[in-house]
Amino acid sequence: MAGRLSAIRSIAPDLATSAELTVDTKGEGFTEITRELAGFLEQSGAGEGVLLLYLRHTSASLTIQENADPDVQADLTTALRRLAPDDGPWVHTVEGPDDMPGHIKAMLTGVSLHIPVRGGVLALGTWQGVYVVEHRRKPHRRELILQFVGTGG
Amino acid sequence: MAGRLSAIRSIAPDLATSAELTVDTKGEGFTEITRELAGFLEQSGAGEGVLLLYLRHTSASLTIQENADPDVQADLTTALRRLAPDDGPWVHTVEGPDDMPGHIKAMLTGVSLHIPVRGGVLALGTWQGVYVVEHRRKPHRRELILQFVGTGG
Amino acid sequence: MAGRLSAIRSIAPDLATSAELTVDTKGEGFTEITRELAGFLEQSGAGEGVLLLYLRHTSASLTIQENADPDVQADLTTALRRLAPDDGPWVHTVEGPDDMPGHIKAMLTGVSLHIPVRGGVLALGTWQGVYVVEHRRKPHRRELILQFVGTGG
Repeated sequence: MAGRLSAIRSIAPDLATSAELTVDTKGEGFTEITRELAGFLEQSGAGEGVLLLYLRHTSASLTIQENADPDVQADLTTALRRLAPDDGPWVHTVEGPDDMPGHIKAMLTGVSLHIPVRGGVLALGTWQGVYVVEHRRKPHRRELILQFVGTGG
Repeated sequence: MAGRLSAIRSIAPDLATSAELTVDTKGEGFTEITRELAGFLEQSGAGEGVLLLYLRHTSASLTIQENADPDVQADLTTALRRLAPDDGPWVHTVEGPDDMPGHIKAMLTGVSLHIPVRGGVLALGTWQGVYVVEHRRKPHRRELILQFVGTGG
Repeated sequence: MAGRLSAIRSIAPDLATSAELTVDTKGEGFTEITRELAGFLEQSGAGEGVLLLYLRHTSASLTIQENADPDVQADLTTALRRLAPDDGPWVHTVEGPDDMPGHIKAMLTGVSLHIPVRGGVLALGTWQGVYVVEHRRKPHRRELILQFVGTGG
């Protein structure tokens, strides 16, 4: 076996909460929302469970990434531009040169993810932060749906 | 803070439903399944909660993408071919030139995702549709498992 | 309609379990954890529901991929190296040439996913296995959080 399993904890799920989170991005790049998520869990009275995040857009996306060195975010933006360049052979160009690359980047990174919750707080790794990734050049208002499923704290 | 949080709604989850969805693809490209998902929620008697989708294959995948302009889907297919070309330096070629690229494309786009459900309907963004992405050239029969967790409507 | 829906099954979710899984990787490449996940479900007394996986790292990730031919995993590693080469134009290089590519690969493949559970076992497709993907050259100890939500078996 490649892994070692800890003791198992059981609960009876009895609480589900949800809310919208509105994020104003500054244009292409990463906006951290880890603190906003912590606030949602606190206001939800969350105990043990899971936080589900969903982004309602097709040219922005969600990712969990290193939160220590800002250079990492710059390099991630560079990497996405290399994978989906503005001057690629795209047919859909009516909404501007950064629109189709934005859809491709959103497909590669995704708009739904989950994070475990323990004792009412996100069980992120030491270096993990949660980000909305804006793929359009200009600032946009982006809407997320947050959902907690588990027990009350 | 980068975002603004709405009021929080609470429910006690008491319903979980599941079903299989079988999709016949037409070969490489996108097959929209948004209406099928709506039908599952309606037949489930779903109220508030979350829809979980899972695809049981390794050379097809799931994505949430723009549903307005068909050119977007053509460009997404082009983008995936550029990222995982048929003539790349692949060792695993026994199942045809489009098999290994199919596995790579499935890894990059993923086979599991979730969508929030409100009042029994998918809380998709204005331009979002849900798609099975076929990565093989020929048509295939693909099987999904749909699961709803939340409350009855 | 593109798809056919099966009959729908309903349950009342009453069980949620969680545990940590520690995995020692052998350096860059794929470590299968399907058996460890099956063990977690068995020890959880799981019946019907969903297994949620979360990886607490930013230079490793999770994927569901073909488990038959080891060449596939070698080709997937090659594909990721092409998408995020060690000698790319990265600014964040203080942690070694394989660190920033590791973050990019983790962003593209993701650290959270779910798998349906039926009758206490993973409802994987015939050729699907679950893998921790190590993106650093050297071996690392990686920690996952496993969560089951559903009914007891």
